[in-house]
Amino acid sequence: MKIKLLCVGKNNRSFWLKSLENYSNRINFYTSFGIEYVSEGKSGKKSIPGLIKKEEGKKLILKIRKDDFVVLLDEEGKSLNSSAFAKTIRNYQNKGMQSLVFVIGGAYGFSDQIYAKFSNRMRLSDMTFSHQMIRLFFCEQLYRAYTIINNHPYHNS
Amino acid sequence: MKIKLLCVGKNNRSFWLKSLENYSNRINFYTSFGIEYVSEGKSGKKSIPGLIKKEEGKKLILKIRKDDFVVLLDEEGKSLNSSAFAKTIRNYQNKGMQSLVFVIGGAYGFSDQIYAKFSNRMRLSDMTFSHQMIRLFFCEQLYRAYTIINNHPYHNS
Repeated sequence: MKIKLLCVGKNNRSFWLKSLENYSNRINFYTSFGIEYVSEGKSGKKSIPGLIKKEEGKKLILKIRKDDFVVLLDEEGKSLNSSAFAKTIRNYQNKGMQSLVFVIGGAYGFSDQIYAKFSNRMRLSDMTFSHQMIRLFFCEQLYRAYTIINNHPYHNS
Repeated sequence: MKIKLLCVGKNNRSFWLKSLENYSNRINFYTSFGIEYVSEGKSGKKSIPGLIKKEEGKKLILKIRKDDFVVLLDEEGKSLNSSAFAKTIRNYQNKGMQSLVFVIGGAYGFSDQIYAKFSNRMRLSDMTFSHQMIRLFFCEQLYRAYTIINNHPYHNS
Protein backbone atom coordinates (compact mmCIF):
# COMPACT_ATOMS: atom_id res chain seq x y z
CA MET A 1 0.00 0.00 0.00
CA LYS A 2 1.32 3.41 -1.02
CA ILE A 3 0.64 6.21 1.42
CA LYS A 4 1.00 9.88 0.59
CA LEU A 5 0.70 12.90 2.83
CA LEU A 6 -0.43 15.90 0.81
CA CYS A 7 0.14 19.36 2.33
CA VAL A 8 -0.28 23.02 1.49
CA GLY A 9 2.91 25.11 1.73
CA LYS A 10 6.46 23.92 2.17
CA ASN A 11 8.35 23.67 5.43
CA ASN A 12 10.87 26.44 5.74
CA ARG A 13 13.01 25.44 8.70
CA SER A 14 15.60 22.74 8.56
CA PHE A 15 14.65 21.17 11.88
CA TRP A 16 11.11 20.51 10.64
CA LEU A 17 12.43 18.98 7.44
CA LYS A 18 14.91 16.82 9.35
CA SER A 19 12.35 15.51 11.80
CA LEU A 20 9.87 14.78 8.99
CA GLU A 21 12.60 13.01 7.04
CA ASN A 22 13.42 10.96 10.11
CA TYR A 23 9.85 9.66 10.42
CA SER A 24 9.48 9.23 6.64
CA ASN A 25 12.49 6.96 6.62
CA ARG A 26 11.12 4.95 9.51
CA ILE A 27 7.68 4.59 7.88
CA ASN A 28 9.31 3.48 4.62
CA PHE A 29 10.70 0.51 6.46
CA TYR A 30 7.09 -0.75 6.61
CA THR A 31 5.35 0.75 3.58
CA SER A 32 5.93 3.11 0.67
CA PHE A 33 5.45 6.63 2.03
CA GLY A 34 6.03 10.12 0.70
CA ILE A 35 5.10 13.74 1.36
CA GLU A 36 3.97 16.06 -1.43
CA TYR A 37 3.33 19.76 -1.28
CA VAL A 38 1.22 22.23 -3.22
CA SER A 39 1.96 25.93 -2.91
CA GLU A 40 -0.13 28.21 -0.73
CA GLY A 41 -2.91 30.27 -2.31
CA LYS A 42 -1.67 33.76 -3.16
CA SER A 43 -2.87 36.33 -0.72
CA GLY A 44 -3.33 39.50 -2.75
CA LYS A 45 -3.75 43.01 -1.43
CA LYS A 46 -7.10 41.97 -0.03
CA SER A 47 -6.54 38.38 0.94
CA ILE A 48 -9.88 36.65 1.15
CA PRO A 49 -9.77 33.28 2.98
CA GLY A 50 -12.50 31.84 0.74
CA LEU A 51 -10.50 32.56 -2.43
CA ILE A 52 -7.26 31.26 -0.95
CA LYS A 53 -8.94 28.00 0.09
CA LYS A 54 -10.49 27.63 -3.36
CA GLU A 55 -7.14 28.09 -5.10
CA GLU A 56 -5.43 25.63 -2.76
CA GLY A 57 -8.30 23.15 -3.19
CA LYS A 58 -7.83 23.15 -6.97
CA LYS A 59 -4.11 22.47 -6.60
CA LEU A 60 -4.75 19.64 -4.14
CA ILE A 61 -7.28 17.99 -6.48
CA LEU A 62 -4.69 18.02 -9.28
CA LYS A 63 -2.45 15.90 -7.05
CA ILE A 64 -5.12 13.27 -6.34
CA ARG A 65 -5.75 10.41 -8.74
CA LYS A 66 -9.07 8.66 -9.34
CA ASP A 67 -8.04 5.49 -7.56
CA ASP A 68 -6.63 7.22 -4.46
CA PHE A 69 -8.51 6.71 -1.23
CA VAL A 70 -8.57 10.15 0.41
CA VAL A 71 -8.75 11.04 4.11
CA LEU A 72 -8.89 14.69 5.14
CA LEU A 73 -7.15 15.61 8.38
CA ASP A 74 -9.76 17.99 9.66
CA GLU A 75 -10.72 19.44 13.03
CA GLU A 76 -14.34 18.38 12.41
CA GLY A 77 -13.23 14.79 11.69
CA LYS A 78 -13.54 11.69 13.81
CA SER A 79 -11.13 11.51 16.74
CA LEU A 80 -9.13 8.30 17.00
CA ASN A 81 -6.61 7.12 19.52
CA SER A 82 -3.33 5.57 18.31
CA SER A 83 -4.60 1.98 18.50
CA ALA A 84 -7.79 2.82 16.59
CA PHE A 85 -5.73 4.61 13.93
CA ALA A 86 -3.48 1.55 13.60
CA LYS A 87 -6.59 -0.64 13.23
CA THR A 88 -7.87 1.66 10.47
CA ILE A 89 -4.57 1.40 8.59
CA ARG A 90 -4.58 -2.40 8.98
CA ASN A 91 -8.16 -2.58 7.69
CA TYR A 92 -7.18 -0.57 4.61
CA GLN A 93 -4.30 -2.98 4.02
CA ASN A 94 -6.54 -6.01 4.48
CA LYS A 95 -9.01 -4.64 1.95
CA GLY A 96 -6.15 -4.56 -0.56
CA MET A 97 -6.15 -0.79 -0.83
CA GLN A 98 -3.42 0.35 -3.24
CA SER A 99 -3.11 4.05 -2.63
CA LEU A 100 -4.04 6.05 0.43
CA VAL A 101 -3.76 9.85 0.55
CA PHE A 102 -4.02 11.93 3.73
CA VAL A 103 -4.54 15.63 3.14
CA ILE A 104 -3.70 18.56 5.44
CA GLY A 105 -5.29 21.85 4.43
CA GLY A 106 -3.82 25.34 4.38
CA ALA A 107 -4.04 28.11 6.97
CA TYR A 108 -7.76 28.64 6.36
CA GLY A 109 -8.71 24.98 6.03
CA PHE A 110 -10.34 23.17 3.11
CA SER A 111 -12.53 24.63 0.37
CA ASP A 112 -16.16 23.61 -0.09
CA GLN A 113 -15.09 21.80 -3.25
CA ILE A 114 -12.74 19.59 -1.24
CA TYR A 115 -15.40 18.84 1.37
CA ALA A 116 -17.92 18.01 -1.36
CA LYS A 117 -15.51 15.61 -3.06
CA PHE A 118 -14.03 13.79 -0.04
CA SER A 119 -16.12 12.69 2.90
CA ASN A 120 -13.57 10.76 5.01
CA ARG A 121 -12.23 12.95 7.77
CA MET A 122 -10.21 12.32 10.85
CA ARG A 123 -9.04 14.59 13.66
CA LEU A 124 -5.68 14.23 15.39
CA SER A 125 -6.47 16.42 18.40
CA ASP A 126 -8.97 18.95 19.72
CA MET A 127 -6.12 21.43 19.57
CA THR A 128 -5.15 23.54 16.59
CA PHE A 129 -1.58 23.25 15.30
CA SER A 130 0.81 25.00 13.02
CA HIS A 131 1.17 23.35 9.64
CA GLN A 132 4.66 22.23 10.44
CA MET A 133 3.52 20.67 13.66
CA ILE A 134 0.55 18.79 12.26
CA ARG A 135 2.72 17.17 9.57
CA LEU A 136 5.18 15.90 12.11
CA PHE A 137 2.34 14.84 14.40
CA PHE A 138 0.75 12.82 11.59
CA CYS A 139 4.03 11.17 10.55
CA GLU A 140 4.74 10.11 14.13
CA GLN A 141 1.26 8.60 14.38
CA LEU A 142 1.60 6.77 11.07
CA TYR A 143 4.96 5.36 12.15
CA ARG A 144 3.42 4.43 15.51
CA ALA A 145 0.52 2.72 13.69
CA TYR A 146 2.96 0.50 11.79
CA THR A 147 4.85 -0.36 14.97
CA ILE A 148 1.52 -1.37 16.56
CA ILE A 149 0.53 -3.46 13.51
CA ASN A 150 3.94 -5.16 13.56
CA ASN A 151 4.23 -5.58 17.35
CA HIS A 152 7.32 -3.42 17.49
CA PRO A 153 7.95 -2.18 21.07
CA TYR A 154 7.87 1.55 20.14
CA HIS A 155 4.25 1.88 21.33
CA ASN A 156 4.06 1.20 25.05
CA SER A 157 0.44 1.50 25.94
CA MET B 1 4.06 34.14 35.92
CA LYS B 2 6.87 31.62 35.64
CA ILE B 3 6.07 28.48 33.68
CA LYS B 4 8.17 25.34 33.74
CA LEU B 5 7.84 22.17 31.70
CA LEU B 6 9.22 19.24 33.65
CA CYS B 7 10.08 16.09 31.67
CA VAL B 8 11.59 12.64 32.17
CA GLY B 9 14.61 11.88 29.97
CA LYS B 10 16.58 14.23 27.77
CA ASN B 11 16.14 14.77 24.07
CA ASN B 12 18.87 13.14 22.09
CA ARG B 13 18.46 14.49 18.60
CA SER B 14 19.47 17.99 17.61
CA PHE B 15 16.36 18.65 15.56
CA TRP B 16 14.15 18.11 18.60
CA LEU B 17 16.31 20.38 20.70
CA LYS B 18 16.32 23.05 18.01
CA SER B 19 12.58 23.01 17.55
CA LEU B 20 11.99 23.12 21.34
CA GLU B 21 14.44 25.99 21.64
CA ASN B 22 12.60 27.81 18.89
CA TYR B 23 9.29 27.65 20.77
CA SER B 24 10.92 28.36 24.13
CA ASN B 25 12.34 31.57 22.76
CA ARG B 26 8.97 32.57 21.36
CA ILE B 27 7.17 31.82 24.65
CA ASN B 28 9.77 33.83 26.56
CA PHE B 29 8.69 36.87 24.62
CA TYR B 30 5.45 36.66 26.65
CA THR B 31 6.38 34.99 29.94
CA SER B 32 9.29 33.39 31.74
CA PHE B 33 9.49 29.80 30.47
CA GLY B 34 11.96 26.97 30.85
CA ILE B 35 12.24 23.21 30.40
CA GLU B 36 13.78 20.98 33.06
CA TYR B 37 14.61 17.31 32.86
CA VAL B 38 15.01 14.48 35.33
CA SER B 39 16.78 11.31 34.24
CA GLU B 40 14.85 8.19 33.33
CA GLY B 41 14.40 5.43 35.92
CA LYS B 42 17.09 2.80 35.53
CA SER B 43 15.82 -0.31 33.86
CA GLY B 44 17.81 -3.11 35.41
CA LYS B 45 18.07 -6.67 34.18
CA LYS B 46 14.43 -7.12 35.00
CA SER B 47 12.96 -3.75 34.30
CA ILE B 48 9.69 -3.42 36.14
CA PRO B 49 7.51 -0.50 34.97
CA GLY B 50 6.16 0.08 38.51
CA LEU B 51 9.67 0.53 39.94
CA ILE B 52 10.78 2.75 37.07
CA LYS B 53 7.73 5.00 37.52
CA LYS B 54 8.34 5.17 41.28
CA GLU B 55 11.97 6.21 40.82
CA GLU B 56 11.03 8.83 38.22
CA GLY B 57 8.22 10.09 40.47
CA LYS B 58 10.65 10.72 43.31
CA LYS B 59 12.97 12.68 41.03
CA LEU B 60 10.08 14.75 39.70
CA ILE B 61 8.88 15.62 43.21
CA LEU B 62 12.36 16.88 44.08
CA LYS B 63 12.03 19.41 41.26
CA ILE B 64 8.67 20.75 42.45
CA ARG B 65 8.44 23.44 45.12
CA LYS B 66 5.64 23.89 47.62
CA ASP B 67 4.24 26.99 45.96
CA ASP B 68 4.25 25.56 42.43
CA PHE B 69 0.88 24.93 40.86
CA VAL B 70 1.22 21.56 39.14
CA VAL B 71 -0.63 20.22 36.08
CA LEU B 72 0.06 16.69 34.87
CA LEU B 73 -0.09 16.11 31.12
CA ASP B 74 -1.87 12.79 31.22
CA GLU B 75 -3.91 10.71 28.82
CA GLU B 76 -6.66 10.42 31.43
CA GLY B 77 -6.78 14.22 31.83
CA LYS B 78 -9.32 16.71 30.61
CA SER B 79 -9.19 17.42 26.87
CA LEU B 80 -9.04 21.10 25.95
CA ASN B 81 -8.98 22.82 22.61
CA SER B 82 -6.44 25.59 21.98
CA SER B 83 -8.81 28.41 22.94
CA ALA B 84 -9.83 26.70 26.19
CA PHE B 85 -6.18 26.11 27.03
CA ALA B 86 -5.45 29.81 26.43
CA LYS B 87 -8.38 30.71 28.69
CA THR B 88 -6.97 28.44 31.40
CA ILE B 89 -3.56 30.14 31.19
CA ARG B 90 -5.18 33.57 31.30
CA ASN B 91 -7.22 32.57 34.36
CA TYR B 92 -4.05 31.43 36.13
CA GLN B 93 -2.47 34.80 35.31
CA ASN B 94 -5.52 36.71 36.52
CA LYS B 95 -5.48 34.82 39.80
CA GLY B 96 -1.94 36.12 40.32
CA MET B 97 -0.38 32.68 40.11
CA GLN B 98 3.41 32.91 40.45
CA SER B 99 4.68 29.56 39.35
CA LEU B 100 3.06 27.01 37.09
CA VAL B 101 4.61 23.60 36.40
CA PHE B 102 3.44 21.22 33.68
CA VAL B 103 4.76 17.68 34.02
CA ILE B 104 5.21 15.03 31.31
CA GLY B 105 5.80 11.51 32.64
CA GLY B 106 8.23 8.84 31.46
CA ALA B 107 7.65 5.91 29.11
CA TYR B 108 5.41 4.14 31.63
CA GLY B 109 3.51 7.19 32.84
CA PHE B 110 3.22 8.59 36.36
CA SER B 111 3.65 6.76 39.67
CA ASP B 112 0.79 6.39 42.17
CA GLN B 113 2.67 8.84 44.41
CA ILE B 114 2.51 11.51 41.72
CA TYR B 115 -1.19 10.90 41.10
CA ALA B 116 -1.88 11.06 44.85
CA LYS B 117 -0.04 14.36 45.18
CA PHE B 118 -1.26 16.24 42.10
CA SER B 119 -4.84 16.12 40.94
CA ASN B 120 -4.83 18.59 38.02
CA ARG B 121 -4.54 16.75 34.75
CA MET B 122 -4.96 17.72 31.15
CA ARG B 123 -4.78 15.74 27.91
CA LEU B 124 -3.36 17.12 24.68
CA SER B 125 -4.80 14.44 22.38
CA ASP B 126 -6.46 11.04 22.35
CA MET B 127 -3.31 9.82 20.62
CA THR B 128 -0.16 8.58 22.30
CA PHE B 129 3.10 10.33 21.44
CA SER B 130 6.80 9.87 21.78
CA HIS B 131 8.31 11.93 24.59
CA GLN B 132 10.08 14.16 22.13
CA MET B 133 6.85 14.79 20.28
CA ILE B 134 4.71 15.58 23.31
CA ARG B 135 7.20 18.20 24.52
CA LEU B 136 7.19 19.99 21.21
CA PHE B 137 3.41 19.63 21.02
CA PHE B 138 3.01 21.23 24.44
CA CYS B 139 5.41 24.10 23.70
CA GLU B 140 3.60 24.89 20.47
CA GLN B 141 0.28 24.98 22.36
CA LEU B 142 1.68 27.18 25.12
CA TYR B 143 3.09 29.58 22.53
CA ARG B 144 -0.27 29.50 20.72
CA ALA B 145 -2.06 30.20 24.01
CA TYR B 146 -0.03 33.36 24.49
CA THR B 147 -0.68 34.50 20.94
CA ILE B 148 -4.42 34.00 21.58
CA ILE B 149 -4.26 35.91 24.89
CA ASN B 150 -2.38 38.74 23.17
CA ASN B 151 -4.39 38.79 19.93
CA HIS B 152 -1.37 37.94 17.83
CA PRO B 153 -2.42 36.63 14.39
CA TYR B 154 -0.58 33.25 14.76
CA HIS B 155 -3.82 31.46 15.71
CA ASN B 156 -6.30 31.61 12.83
CA SER B 157 -9.37 29.88 14.07
